[in-house]
Amino acid sequence: MGMVFADISMSLDGFSAGSNDGPANPLGDHGTRIHQWFFGLDNEPGHAADSRVMDEVTSRTGAVILGRRMFENGLVPWSGVNPWAAPAFVLAHEPRDPLIVDGQIQFTFVYNGIESALDQARSVAGDRDVIIAGGANIVQQFIRSGLLDEVQIHIVPVLLGAGIRLFDQLDARQGELECVRVVESPSVTHLKYRIVR
Amino acid sequence: MGMVFADISMSLDGFSAGSNDGPANPLGDHGTRIHQWFFGLDNEPGHAADSRVMDEVTSRTGAVILGRRMFENGLVPWSGVNPWAAPAFVLAHEPRDPLIVDGQIQFTFVYNGIESALDQARSVAGDRDVIIAGGANIVQQFIRSGLLDEVQIHIVPVLLGAGIRLFDQLDARQGELECVRVVESPSVTHLKYRIVR
Repeated sequence: MGMVFADISMSLDGFSAGSNDGPANPLGDHGTRIHQWFFGLDNEPGHAADSRVMDEVTSRTGAVILGRRMFENGLVPWSGVNPWAAPAFVLAHEPRDPLIVDGQIQFTFVYNGIESALDQARSVAGDRDVIIAGGANIVQQFIRSGLLDEVQIHIVPVLLGAGIRLFDQLDARQGELECVRVVESPSVTHLKYRIVR
Repeated sequence: MGMVFADISMSLDGFSAGSNDGPANPLGDHGTRIHQWFFGLDNEPGHAADSRVMDEVTSRTGAVILGRRMFENGLVPWSGVNPWAAPAFVLAHEPRDPLIVDGQIQFTFVYNGIESALDQARSVAGDRDVIIAGGANIVQQFIRSGLLDEVQIHIVPVLLGAGIRLFDQLDARQGELECVRVVESPSVTHLKYRIVR
């Protein structure tokens, strides 16, 4: 069975999205400053290290879990199509049929909690890992529940000042982490941590 | 003239001290988890990289500025003696005579604002740099004022959950940073940023 890991970008002051996010403002005010390194992967020079880090994430990912808010904000930018190369499960508040585009299931909705979502994700992931893609609230739920094995934070050299904090509403019982790898690039520092239980 | 730089430890979730800090609880609840790497410098194996980073800070420091709260919380652990190898200026709310121990000035108090403190610190620092030692509130004041040239963050692999956030009450105008160096060690990641204006 694979691991459960979260992979998410964060400003140096701790935000994973800006304020006032919504379908018309998917990353929130100034939120593109946090995530632009990711969208520039294929275009900018000097970012080979970023590409390697993200290729590694893609190759280990057997299934994706994301929150309803991330799904709703992403739907227009993604044109309704799952942007990952693995099945995606959306945590929802009520039952809902899968979203199908061109005859393919793009997103499956799970309304009975994160453990059920993880069971379903694991059932399709095989030996590969389940990635918790965000947003912040979902990452926090997985940390609090003790279900997360690893977290990779892409620390972006920006002070956003306001927005959605990646790590919030946790407490000291969530314990120690162990930094298992650091990768530098011109635009972002990739820090991978194992959660010590 | 030297640079103005801040040097401070931060938990991965953004705290530089725990909750309920005070003279009887200098680093706040669980705050030693953020700073223990620093106090273990001379004792633990595998921390040569940490020592090199801190030696570099010591050698570039010509004067130190710290906040009143950090001073009051530190006074007992420091036995009233300036723990830095350079003159220390404390931001105070009213005029106060220097603190003298064994005939030596340990701390000088500045009550008329951060720019005055910086002028006084620069006047003794010569070609060396002025370090903003903390706490969080003072670092924020220097960032907001545009007086800070560099910030070195020691990111500790701990989720504290509550306490004093290092970066708070800033806004997006504080702008971009440029990561100029990353140093890994077993217990902490040292990230040095230049502030881009």
